[in-house]
Amino acid sequence: MTITNRRVIFEKRPEGWVSEDCFRVEDAPVPELGDGDVLVRNIYMSVDPYMRGRMNDEKSYTAGFALGKVMQCGAVGEIAESRNPKFEAGQIVTGMLNWETHTVVPGGAGIVRIDPALAPLPYFLGILGMPGFTAWYGLLKIGEPKAGETVYVSAASGAVGQVVGQIAKLKGCRVVGSAGDDAKCKWCVEGCGFDACFNYKTVDSVEDALKQHCPHGIDIYFENVGGRMLDAVLTRLNPFSRIALCGMISQYNLKQPEGIHNVRSLLVNKVKLQGFIISDHFDLQPEFMRDVGGWLKDGKLTYRVDVADGIDNAPKAFIGMLKGENFGKQVVKLGDDPYQA
Amino acid sequence: MTITNRRVIFEKRPEGWVSEDCFRVEDAPVPELGDGDVLVRNIYMSVDPYMRGRMNDEKSYTAGFALGKVMQCGAVGEIAESRNPKFEAGQIVTGMLNWETHTVVPGGAGIVRIDPALAPLPYFLGILGMPGFTAWYGLLKIGEPKAGETVYVSAASGAVGQVVGQIAKLKGCRVVGSAGDDAKCKWCVEGCGFDACFNYKTVDSVEDALKQHCPHGIDIYFENVGGRMLDAVLTRLNPFSRIALCGMISQYNLKQPEGIHNVRSLLVNKVKLQGFIISDHFDLQPEFMRDVGGWLKDGKLTYRVDVADGIDNAPKAFIGMLKGENFGKQVVKLGDDPYQA
Repeated sequence: MTITNRRVIFEKRPEGWVSEDCFRVEDAPVPELGDGDVLVRNIYMSVDPYMRGRMNDEKSYTAGFALGKVMQCGAVGEIAESRNPKFEAGQIVTGMLNWETHTVVPGGAGIVRIDPALAPLPYFLGILGMPGFTAWYGLLKIGEPKAGETVYVSAASGAVGQVVGQIAKLKGCRVVGSAGDDAKCKWCVEGCGFDACFNYKTVDSVEDALKQHCPHGIDIYFENVGGRMLDAVLTRLNPFSRIALCGMISQYNLKQPEGIHNVRSLLVNKVKLQGFIISDHFDLQPEFMRDVGGWLKDGKLTYRVDVADGIDNAPKAFIGMLKGENFGKQVVKLGDDPYQA
Repeated sequence: MTITNRRVIFEKRPEGWVSEDCFRVEDAPVPELGDGDVLVRNIYMSVDPYMRGRMNDEKSYTAGFALGKVMQCGAVGEIAESRNPKFEAGQIVTGMLNWETHTVVPGGAGIVRIDPALAPLPYFLGILGMPGFTAWYGLLKIGEPKAGETVYVSAASGAVGQVVGQIAKLKGCRVVGSAGDDAKCKWCVEGCGFDACFNYKTVDSVEDALKQHCPHGIDIYFENVGGRMLDAVLTRLNPFSRIALCGMISQYNLKQPEGIHNVRSLLVNKVKLQGFIISDHFDLQPEFMRDVGGWLKDGKLTYRVDVADGIDNAPKAFIGMLKGENFGKQVVKLGDDPYQA
């Protein structure tokens, strides 16, 4: 059996906005498996905001992507071939894989089996994966919401935001979101049960919109975007409010960050701001799965996925996600999904 | 006995820098005591950075100062007359009193007796008072220092900074400070045991000075000044570092705050930033007094006080403190100190 692997190579570092010529798509042979290795046929891959940081030649959470090499990503796939007793062909796994159709996993390290009966496969890259875990941790462990408090989340319909808002509703909070599109806002309210969601691109003033929709101020801000939005939120924070600093997607493609000016609010309102990255908290993964897996099973949570088709479209899907063109968690479908409804 | 009270009236709100014409000093009769009231002859009053916020016509920690009225302050005084069974003439007390030589305290509420044998009276407005409590809380409860970590404190020789640095040394940390004067820096190192202290006004670059003196990065930043200093610190923070946001004195007299640009550091370094005001934590006051009172008694801490003389000089002392002209905790002596060595 000869298998061709189609993969995305990191070709050029972006300056400012990422463009498609930062990537090159090519075919390559799949290398021979060694003892203990497994070959994964990738079915869905995840594109995530944090990847933008890994394209820079600077320190971020994790090591940068290597120029001229295939890029990494979270993915869900099927074991195509196994020389490892822990895996059998046909099993569904997830883990840190690559932007490619087929990945050889040395020693089977870093992938785990998942139960495809639990949820649609893309969910394991979203609500049951890193974005859902991020939402759960940031809201509950940093935000510590109490019933009746106001939670505001930016990028509200995104991979993380939609989970934040729904968990906050389960905890009895008033939930306000923002997004860059009327349809997204409508879905946050009607599909996810948010109390309000506004289009930050079309309101006259974000400050006024926050005033209108958060009449009692903001107790928890789940920060996904940064920059001017953070500055506006600072004007509406309540005493003892909390900011879960998860991401700053509005800033990642700027050559100079916008910065913030209303820093004094952090002082006079005695705010706790906590930056975090979920990979530091894997010890809590079982608790997350009990909570979010349970709520999902009980029909208390919904989740929206945006599926791009084919490895050749991965760069475009990634860039679109950075621009907010996705509606829901963005994944790329790389091959047949045997569990697709 | 006719007593004249000399007091400072809040005459005019400042715009930008405070000037002496924001205040008016006047004489007034001391009103008759009612049942339960006490009259305190104030001996030392405290001038503190937070007072600048109370001069604005906006929300801050506490209610603003009322125009045309006497201003409030922490003070130490002697009971001059008591119609309250809990107090006797000659006892030394501290509490929220006023910018004046004599304060009538209705019902004796809000003042507590102190033991003048413990320490010089001005210390009760400094290391044993609100600034010391602030230093202790911010460093230990927010910063949670571990031996070997690097602690950086701005306004290092000030009312709070000198205590932060000394406690951090007791906890086994590397301690670096900054101040706006070579003599202050020298004193931080030689008098307080800091590992290093630099003059932020004369170094070529604060970033480079931090790089030089914090070669392993900063684990805890005790923030007293804000603005550009905070932005520089953000470039040197270690993963999982903590910022105790105590004050931002560099910003209080600006019409527009400088803002910060290196916000992304808070995210990628997973920083905890916590704004605080010590009046929210009075439940911990006994623990603070055990710790700091004990260290002081054991000769493990020193404290430097800068004493201005006379109520007429209170506005000038306050303005000088905002400009960093004080060397150590600034107090104003208002009358005879029977315990002065």
